Formats: sequence, structure tokens, C-alpha cells
Amino acid sequence: MNFSMIVYILAWVLKIEGISMILPLICSLLYRENDIALCFFFIGAASILLGYILTAKKPKKIAFYAREGFVIVAACWVVLSLVGALPFFISGRIPHYIDALFEIVSGFTTTGSSVLSDVEALGKGLLFWRSFSHWIGGMGVLVLVLTVLPLGGGYNMMIMKAESPGPEVSKMVPRVADTAKALYKIYFILTIIMIVIFLLSGMPLFDALCIGFGTAGTGGFAIRNSGMADYSMLSQFLITVFMILFGVNFNVYYLIQRKKFSDAFHSEEARGYFIIIAASTLFITLNIFQSIGRGFLFALHHAFFTVGSIITTTGFSTLDFNEWAVPSQMIILFLMICGACAGSTGGGLKVSRLLILLKSLGKEMHLIIHPEAIRKVRLEGKCLDHAVVRSVSTYLMAYCFIYMISIFLISFDGYDFMTNFSAISATFNNIGPGLGKVGPLSNFSVYSYFSKLVMIFDMLAGRLEIFPMLILFSIKTWRKTN
Amino acid sequence: MNFSMIVYILAWVLKIEGISMILPLICSLLYRENDIALCFFFIGAASILLGYILTAKKPKKIAFYAREGFVIVAACWVVLSLVGALPFFISGRIPHYIDALFEIVSGFTTTGSSVLSDVEALGKGLLFWRSFSHWIGGMGVLVLVLTVLPLGGGYNMMIMKAESPGPEVSKMVPRVADTAKALYKIYFILTIIMIVIFLLSGMPLFDALCIGFGTAGTGGFAIRNSGMADYSMLSQFLITVFMILFGVNFNVYYLIQRKKFSDAFHSEEARGYFIIIAASTLFITLNIFQSIGRGFLFALHHAFFTVGSIITTTGFSTLDFNEWAVPSQMIILFLMICGACAGSTGGGLKVSRLLILLKSLGKEMHLIIHPEAIRKVRLEGKCLDHAVVRSVSTYLMAYCFIYMISIFLISFDGYDFMTNFSAISATFNNIGPGLGKVGPLSNFSVYSYFSKLVMIFDMLAGRLEIFPMLILFSIKTWRKTN
Repeated sequence: MNFSMIVYILAWVLKIEGISMILPLICSLLYRENDIALCFFFIGAASILLGYILTAKKPKKIAFYAREGFVIVAACWVVLSLVGALPFFISGRIPHYIDALFEIVSGFTTTGSSVLSDVEALGKGLLFWRSFSHWIGGMGVLVLVLTVLPLGGGYNMMIMKAESPGPEVSKMVPRVADTAKALYKIYFILTIIMIVIFLLSGMPLFDALCIGFGTAGTGGFAIRNSGMADYSMLSQFLITVFMILFGVNFNVYYLIQRKKFSDAFHSEEARGYFIIIAASTLFITLNIFQSIGRGFLFALHHAFFTVGSIITTTGFSTLDFNEWAVPSQMIILFLMICGACAGSTGGGLKVSRLLILLKSLGKEMHLIIHPEAIRKVRLEGKCLDHAVVRSVSTYLMAYCFIYMISIFLISFDGYDFMTNFSAISATFNNIGPGLGKVGPLSNFSVYSYFSKLVMIFDMLAGRLEIFPMLILFSIKTWRKTN
Repeated sequence: MNFSMIVYILAWVLKIEGISMILPLICSLLYRENDIALCFFFIGAASILLGYILTAKKPKKIAFYAREGFVIVAACWVVLSLVGALPFFISGRIPHYIDALFEIVSGFTTTGSSVLSDVEALGKGLLFWRSFSHWIGGMGVLVLVLTVLPLGGGYNMMIMKAESPGPEVSKMVPRVADTAKALYKIYFILTIIMIVIFLLSGMPLFDALCIGFGTAGTGGFAIRNSGMADYSMLSQFLITVFMILFGVNFNVYYLIQRKKFSDAFHSEEARGYFIIIAASTLFITLNIFQSIGRGFLFALHHAFFTVGSIITTTGFSTLDFNEWAVPSQMIILFLMICGACAGSTGGGLKVSRLLILLKSLGKEMHLIIHPEAIRKVRLEGKCLDHAVVRSVSTYLMAYCFIYMISIFLISFDGYDFMTNFSAISATFNNIGPGLGKVGPLSNFSVYSYFSKLVMIFDMLAGRLEIFPMLILFSIKTWRKTN
């Protein structure tokens, strides 16, 4: 295990986290929250200082292996969260450290679950930090590190693989550092366009920024106690459109940027994603519009918002879907598990994984009917390697096991099955609100600190696609320190 | 598609079903239920007659392929159920045919879910038929056909593969017909021993027979409205022991019969099965004994009974586990999904599949940490073929998809998620009682006929391990009738 390299990259993450605290620091000063500003100043300065000391000497041996890649990614996210929780805790606005940790992990992993019943009491500076963490976590903090710290060749590819969501990583351009830069460029430009449009639609600047960060990272922290319900229909509609756009595989935008419109248009995953959104919206609208009783368009508007919010795992809410008919709730639960496209900022299983699973199932059925047939699983026109198909199956297994164990562990708090099941669904898939006692109008404060730790693990495991976290906490990883 | 061969084997199933109606016919006569006896007589006679007519001429072309094997198995179980439901329906004791079909499918698939609130009103003859269907379905009706209809070589192996539960079929003896006979011999002898012991423990003959059939097939139909609660502690304990024994892989008994005690003792699956039973019983006892408040031994007794009943997917009940603490309910839900050993009469995913899934997960994790390593998944000391590991993953996928679609389809009845989830868990895994509104003291009559049809499909799919049913209802199977 190449410890010096792990520490070196961790130190870089500290530096970037410290620098990123400048924005909430400025925000606190503008709103005259001087105590909060002081917190950000000291924590940020300490992170940057510690980061500089530890990166002063570049390690002699750069080489590391897949194992270290996974450990680095998981450890970075843990350190990022431990430090990121400090402003909430030291300022005293969230008195218990585990609660603060839950809140910031929920931020960085773009989950959006909260333990706070009165978010407005946090103050503007902390609200800004909370929403900004969505934006940082959305594209991945290590991808950002890679843009400034080119490690050369295979090494950063391992890190990128471990941090990026989805079954496969396609390097858009030959060099990984360039791919990382291209991704961040698209992410940045899309975010700017969105915030400008939000401002034009009449949203105040602070709201446009915070909700913009939450939408871009598909996070979902609200900055008002009423969630998204108070914004105009136009603003809600624009938020829906951008949530859905940030759930599309970023390769598609890269192709559009390169003017390869036909390739972009033929992305099988993006098509599946849009079809699921359209079908679910239509179904839920037809299922709920009579019981809501405020006309078809009203139901369509909120169904579209909810579907966009849930499938992209953002988790903003306008209406309490707990009160909808059961079939609609089931669709929402399905969308929670399904998730957005790979290579987007969304969470969940990912549409491409579902496509691969469905196609391998079809292939196996075909093989039973025609044992002599030769058939390959294809996605996006390419034959999928056996290794990819197998890793997707392994992922499904690990996913099911963690689901079950987590639900069991939090069941000791004594809440009903629906609440527990949806609490784990909401955190593990990085969505935010669940059903039952943790529905869109409630929060996660009802759970014990032990359960919150379980959900913190699940949020990180969900964001990093399980394996980095499993490997960080596996005894085998640390047994032979060679 | 070799239709004449399919019809030929279906006709054999009809004959056997007709003959098996003789026992309930005698029972009806003994209890002077003459109208029921008449029903059994006419339906049985008609089945035998039709069977004889259709098997009069042996088809010229015996050859068939895996596809036909799956279709035959699925079609046989459908026909078996359609005819088996007639006595309930024609006698008028279950007025709606779908209800009668639900009841007999629940019987043959050894599920034990019921739509009846007052089972005693059925009368002795129909109660006997209902419990006897567990015994017939437990070992598999086509395995029985194979003992009397040797097709030669590979053909009956295909049928055996499709009907036997578990990821692999090990032929215990070279010829399939002999394997089938050996299996039925063990099944028969174990059943006789059990019934004698039940009688010695003071159970009435009718109860000993019916509960014996339900225990042997791990079915779970009760013959009293109070379930198993009225029997003595000793009887309940004996039932538990035999439920667990019938959940063991029958290979183990074959090895014991052959005096290969060391091989039998080292069965990895059986060990895992016993460890899960012991651990779950201990956990539930500790979790519930204070809240029940009738002492440690009382809690241990009922925890043991419930764990044995659920893991073997029998579904007998003494206490209402709906009232237990939530962690215990989660353990019960886990046991529902886990199920018994492959090659037993139990349902669920099967312990061996879980072992294979866990081991492949461990292997994949090991490969991430040590990419250069070569490691094979081993079970029972043998390296597992890639095809087996892959088929287990495929099975898990199909399992998850059917779970989700079924829960969605029955959600239109408007019941809560816990009830729907456990209703599908209970029927798809062939257990019987669920949690919530379909708990051990309730029944499935609350659901609509559409939902009952979904559950009928799930019970058959669960018993036949999904693929035969999927292939029977797949358009592709029937497209080219060559």
C-alpha cells in the first residue's frame, strides 16, 4: 500500500476544500453573519495550511494499483466529509457532530436528506455551504483534483474509474486530465446558463445560486422550510428541465459540443432515460389528477416535477407524494432505484445498468430457447465485454446485500418497514426524501445516531458505487501492507 | 415445437392427477361427505379417461429440446392446477373459480397462502385434497411421471432440470429415472416416519396425515382455523424438526442412505442452512422474549417454530409475528427471501444460491484488491462452472424484476406497501403468510381477482424457478413452430 501517495492526494483534497470555503465565507460576510464567517475562515485556512504542508514534498514513488485507487477515492470522500461538517458543528448551529456529518455527507453525495426541521434557522452562509457541497460532490472532487494534478497515464484513470458513476468509463479524449477538464467545462457552463435563466425567471440571486447548485449536482437541499412549493410554476418548470438535463450522460453534451449531433441523438441510454421519464409522468398524472382535483395540467406539472426530481435523484419536492395513490408511489420507488444516466451527476442504479441487466436477461432467455445461438449483449451499438456484464451483476448483488443489511440495522429504531425501506432507498440511491415518516415534508432526525451512521455509510457507498467503500472497510485490504 | 410430445406428457400428468384423487375420495366417503365424494369421482374419472385416450398412441418423434422441456414443465403445472381447482369449484365450497385456482396453486406450489377465512367449513375431503396437493407438488409431479415413463437419456434430464429447485441438478445415480425413484423413495419413507411419530405424539390420524403432507411438501395449509396454535408443545416441536428436515437437500439423505456419513456431514449448503436457523432463532428469542413476557423457553419454542416454518417456506404459524419487534420481522423477511436448501421441497432463493452470490461477490472484491490473482468460486469442494455462476446472477436479476413488477401490479388494490411487499414475498417464495394485512392470522381474500392472478403466476414462477413460466408466456417461444 502506497501510503505516502494516499496522504499526498488527501492533502490536495484538503487544499481544494479549504479554497472552496471562500465562497460561503463571502456569503456570510455579505449577510453580516460574522460568527459563521469566522468559522469558515479558520476551518478553511487550517485546511489549506495542512494541505500545503503535506503536499510540500511530492512522494518519490508515484506508482499505485487499483486497490490504492479505490482506497484513495473512499478515504478522500471520508476526509472531505469530516472536515466539511466542521462549520455546522463549530458554529453550534447543528449541536451534534453526527448530525452535522449526516448533513454534509448528504450534501457532498448529492443526496439531499436532511436532519433539520427548520433549515432557515441555519443562516445564509451555512445554507450556501450546504448547497455548494452538492455542486462540488456532483461532478466528483477527485475529478477536480485530477484537472490540477496530472498523475500521468494509468494512475488517474484508476481514480476516475472509482469515482465516476456508471458501469463503464469512456475516456472522451485520450488523456484523463483532459477528459476531467472537458467534463468540468461542460458542468460549469451548464450551471452558469441555468443560473442566468433562473434569475431571468424572477428568482432572487441567493435562491438562484443555491437551487442552481442543488440542481446541477442533482442534490436536492431546499433553502426554505416549504421546500420548492413557494416558487412560481415557471421557476418549478425550469428547475424540472434542468434537473433532467443534469441527469443525462455528459458524453452526450460532449458530442453536441463536438457537433456530432447524430451520435448524441442515438445514445441508447439517454433515449431510455427520456422514455422512462415520459411514461412515468403520464402514468402518475392519470393516476392522481382526479384525487388531487385541481385539473389535469396541475397534476401534469407536479407529476413532471416529481418524476424529474426522483429519477435524477435530486429530491426537490413541491407536493407530498405520500398522499398519492399507491401505484404512483410504487412508480416513485421504482424511479428511486432506477436513477439517472451513468456519467451524469445523478445516483441510483443508473439506466445503463438496468439496460445491461435487461439485455443479459433477454440473452439468457434466448439461449434457453435456442441453445445453439450465439448472441452478445450490445449497448450503444457496441458489444459489451463479458467483464462489464459480470461487474454489473456483481454490482446488483452487492447492492441487494447492502440494502438488506442496512434495513435490518436501522430496524432497531422501531419504525415501520415502509419508513425504513424508503429511508435506505433515499440515502443509498442519493435521492433525499423517502416515503412514510421520512417523506418530503419530514426529515431524518427521528432516527438514532447509530442509524444515521449506517445511512452516512450508505450515502457514500451509493455515491461511490459501493466498491470503494467496501474495500476501504475490508480487513483484507489492510492485511498485507506491502 | 414437438406438440405431440407435449400433449403426451400432459396426458400422463392428467392420469396421475386422476389417480391421486382416489385418496381424498376415500376420505370424503369415510366422513360421509357424499356430494364431495361424487365430485372427486367424476373429476378423477374424467381425468384418467382423457389421459388414457391421449396416451393411447405414443408419439413417433420423441426427440425434444430444452425449449420444449421448459414448456412441458410449465404447461403441466398449469394443467395440473386448472384440473385440481375443479373439486373446490364444482362442489360450490369455493364459489369463484379464480379463488379455487389460487387455493390449489397455493397447494401444489407448496405455498400455503389461502383465500379462506374459515377453512374448517371446507369439509374433511376437500381439506385432505388441499393438504395432499402439498405432498404431490413438494417433490414435483413430473419427477413422479419420470419414474413411470422413462424417456431415455437426455430428454428426462431436461425436464428434471426445469422442475427441480436449485442452481444445479446433481444426478445421484447415472440414470435419471433411477434418480427420480431414489428421491421419491426417500420422500415417501421420511413422510411415513413423520406421520407415525406425529401419531405417537397424540395427534389424531386425520391431522397427522394432513399436517404431515403440509410438512413434507413444506406447504403450510392449516386444517384448523386457529392454525397450529391448538396443538401441544410437543407436537409443535416435532413439526418444527420435520419442517427443517424436509428443507435439507435430499442428496444428504441419499448419502446417508449410502452410509457416506462424512460426505453428508460436510455439505456446505446444509451447514449454512443450520447456521442460519440457529442464529436467527437465537436472535429472535432474545429480541422478543421480554415483550412477550412468558419466559425465555416460551419465546425460544415459538421463535424456533417460526424460523423453521419460514426458512423452509412452509408457513405454519403459532404466534402472530406481526406483533413482534421490527428487527425480528426483518429477520423473518430475510428468511422468506433466503429459503431452504436446493434439492429440497422448500422454496425461496435457496441457501446454495446465496452462497454462490456471496462467494462471487467475495471473488470480485478480491480481484479488485489483487487484479493479478486467479480465483475460482467453489461450492461443496468443487469449482463452479462459469455457466452456473452466470445463471445464478441471471436468476437474481429475473427475481428482482418479477418482484418489482408484481408489487406494482397489485398496488392498484390500494393496500399499503408493507402488505403488498410481503404478499408478493409470501407467494413468490412459496411461503404462505406475509406481514401486515396478509399476516398469519389473515388471508389473501382482500385482494382483487386480478391481483390473485398475478400471485398465481408468482407462485408457479417461484416453484418452477421463474424460467419455465417466463418461457411459456414468451412470444418468442411460439413464433416459429418448427
